Amino acid sequence: MIPYRTALIVGAGTGLSASLARLLHRRGLAVALAARNPAKLASLAAEIQGRAYACDATQREHVMQLFEAAASDGGEPDLVVYNASYRTRGPFVELDPADVARSLAVSAFGGFLVAQEAARRMATKQNGAIFFTGASASVKGYAQSAPFAMGKFALRGLAQSLARELSPQGIHVAHFVIDGGIRSERRAPPPDKPDSLLDPDAIAATYLHVLEQPRNAWTWEVELRPWLERF
Amino acid sequence: MIPYRTALIVGAGTGLSASLARLLHRRGLAVALAARNPAKLASLAAEIQGRAYACDATQREHVMQLFEAAASDGGEPDLVVYNASYRTRGPFVELDPADVARSLAVSAFGGFLVAQEAARRMATKQNGAIFFTGASASVKGYAQSAPFAMGKFALRGLAQSLARELSPQGIHVAHFVIDGGIRSERRAPPPDKPDSLLDPDAIAATYLHVLEQPRNAWTWEVELRPWLERF
Amino acid sequence: MIPYRTALIVGAGTGLSASLARLLHRRGLAVALAARNPAKLASLAAEIQGRAYACDATQREHVMQLFEAAASDGGEPDLVVYNASYRTRGPFVELDPADVARSLAVSAFGGFLVAQEAARRMATKQNGAIFFTGASASVKGYAQSAPFAMGKFALRGLAQSLARELSPQGIHVAHFVIDGGIRSERRAPPPDKPDSLLDPDAIAATYLHVLEQPRNAWTWEVELRPWLERF
Amino acid sequence: MIPYRTALIVGAGTGLSASLARLLHRRGLAVALAARNPAKLASLAAEIQGRAYACDATQREHVMQLFEAAASDGGEPDLVVYNASYRTRGPFVELDPADVARSLAVSAFGGFLVAQEAARRMATKQNGAIFFTGASASVKGYAQSAPFAMGKFALRGLAQSLARELSPQGIHVAHFVIDGGIRSERRAPPPDKPDSLLDPDAIAATYLHVLEQPRNAWTWEVELRPWLERF
Repeated sequence: MIPYRTALIVGAGTGLSASLARLLHRRGLAVALAARNPAKLASLAAEIQGRAYACDATQREHVMQLFEAAASDGGEPDLVVYNASYRTRGPFVELDPADVARSLAVSAFGGFLVAQEAARRMATKQNGAIFFTGASASVKGYAQSAPFAMGKFALRGLAQSLARELSPQGIHVAHFVIDGGIRSERRAPPPDKPDSLLDPDAIAATYLHVLEQPRNAWTWEVELRPWLERF
Repeated sequence: MIPYRTALIVGAGTGLSASLARLLHRRGLAVALAARNPAKLASLAAEIQGRAYACDATQREHVMQLFEAAASDGGEPDLVVYNASYRTRGPFVELDPADVARSLAVSAFGGFLVAQEAARRMATKQNGAIFFTGASASVKGYAQSAPFAMGKFALRGLAQSLARELSPQGIHVAHFVIDGGIRSERRAPPPDKPDSLLDPDAIAATYLHVLEQPRNAWTWEVELRPWLERF
Repeated sequence: MIPYRTALIVGAGTGLSASLARLLHRRGLAVALAARNPAKLASLAAEIQGRAYACDATQREHVMQLFEAAASDGGEPDLVVYNASYRTRGPFVELDPADVARSLAVSAFGGFLVAQEAARRMATKQNGAIFFTGASASVKGYAQSAPFAMGKFALRGLAQSLARELSPQGIHVAHFVIDGGIRSERRAPPPDKPDSLLDPDAIAATYLHVLEQPRNAWTWEVELRPWLERF
Repeated sequence: MIPYRTALIVGAGTGLSASLARLLHRRGLAVALAARNPAKLASLAAEIQGRAYACDATQREHVMQLFEAAASDGGEPDLVVYNASYRTRGPFVELDPADVARSLAVSAFGGFLVAQEAARRMATKQNGAIFFTGASASVKGYAQSAPFAMGKFALRGLAQSLARELSPQGIHVAHFVIDGGIRSERRAPPPDKPDSLLDPDAIAATYLHVLEQPRNAWTWEVELRPWLERF
């Protein structure tokens, strides 16, 4: 049993977040979606009978308006998922500082803004869940990928700090380390390596399981990878 | 859907493993139990219509006989859970070396013996799951608790090594960090701190979820703690 | 033997960086200092016969001008230390987003800008060292301290990524986890807990040791804490 | 300045421990060596004017006799280094359980016995250092190498627990993660990859540095790897 009625997914797209939105919808939650460009979310929103909001999560005003609108349209979100990130890579000395700033802003600062607004609204009822989507780069800084490591490490620091602070207030904070590529319409595993890419539906199933955990047995971090992934 | 039909829980008792046995039984698996003293398992075994075997998991002959008997009675185990551990604590200089040896033997070496026999039998069908029960001490060595840290760190090293080696052979290896006390008949949370002890049924639900994961999205490690637990 | 002749400490102040500057000066290195407000560095600069530069490390132009000036005045820096950070704390819902942005900018983005300029200049000679000052918050996200965790986690992700990328190019990247308070003129350990604060001279000695390591035995991360510090 | 006068290296051989023995001897410490077969230590012992003792560190009586003899011959050891380990590898299902037991006994249980005897003798003077030699396998369980991971993870759990317990008693506990192969008479780096193996003298220099740290700035764990080592 899920003790929640509404969800808001920030940084929604056609991959993991679409799978998660569908799954939550099937379980009876009202699901709202937010993205910088919500046009791409139109068909998904229609499918799950939810709304898609425009929101640049790096802008505080946007985030506040998003929560205001989502709360007004469908009720205060019980579950808030921060799924946005920005990635750039290449030889360190050739990186564009603007890209690095953007990685920190989208991957981490936006997560702060969204989590803070979520926490404020959950504080009064002492109930809710804030989930963060991480990556291999959340726990390992790879060569030629410093910006993503910076953003994802920062997001993990935020999530861990929040887990320590908000758990005793009844808010479940969890961080998911997605350690591998995700299957999509444009990306399938090679025939000789079946199941070597993560199925977004399977990832969503683990998000749902963590959401269903009672407060006496909460997970704050869980990792997921395909059976053939090196780690 | 669980793709497995039979389970064997080594180091079974009345807590987490009893919850897990009941849950697996309800999901249709044939569940076998093993413990040094199986007498304590009689009523649980009757309840889940399974068998309880005597086994000192630190003795290779015992382990081999256990698997032989379990396979003969109920079929090769698809899921094998290693749940045994031995704990002693106190000022380091006062520890009894025999207790330390026992902690390593029960908490870690027995895990090796059981996992090896499980892996041998799963190798031919390239299918199966081997789960290990960890603790806070698996990832943090506490003062006055070196023996438990030694045993649990070693078990985690085993589990991580096996995850890397056996995952590509189709065997799901997972390690559960149980970070907090578990509620039992003899131990309830204080009234002012509800849900401050882990519910064994809730832990079992997470074991089950990991068991249900498809091979494209496997977790190798997950932690569980009560909402009020400091970490 | 230190194989370097010049050092540049960014985010210099009167604590750890002053100790480090003095120690490097005694070992024969030309040491340059940089801070947002270099006035506070005047006496230190005089003492070590080095220059103090004004630099807002979060601004790329400032960083480039700093390196240009330092290289012109004293030669290309062989060792670059990033020591700047910005910390704010308090209940999560009350945090000022501007402070969080500042923590990311000063603690992490400035580290990127400085490291990138350093790496560019070291690339041609395939020699040099880039050191980062971390904190307890680099590896543990504390309650009521999300901003510092975000900044310091991000800096660690940067350092780890750089260690992987730049080490094979002959550049030694190291990250120091300073896990405890540092003694200063304004802060002494309580009489009943001698040595319970880190001595900045002792920290500097470990920076120096890592600097002296030959490339066949490089440390990328080391932690330091007082004997009485809980961890 | 090293505040110690005597050292005892258990599990001494011709590699790292020989470098360490020579370095400590040059710094004025009386150094005792112990190994299962002390014959191989004869020339080293002569060189450093120390004694070589026979000791099977997995046997408590041996360990007690070793300390008794070393204390009697050269004074209570101020620094005790546990350097013994036993390694076996291969496909998991083919491992000999006796080898696994031996890996746990030599790599971990012997470390406990030696550390306990050391801690007992250091307790009265509230002064001393206990160092443990770790490996890549201390923090990462590799495929086909479960036994070494089990032993080295366990040793790390011991070291971390002791650091928490004994540091406040004035005893410096440190764990060194040697992440790479060590150069020896029989093993040199390939010509196209200079310095790609750890120099045992360089490792010893880092042990010495940690030994010299004042108690207000102690390291409990440090890692070392060659510049070209993948990690």
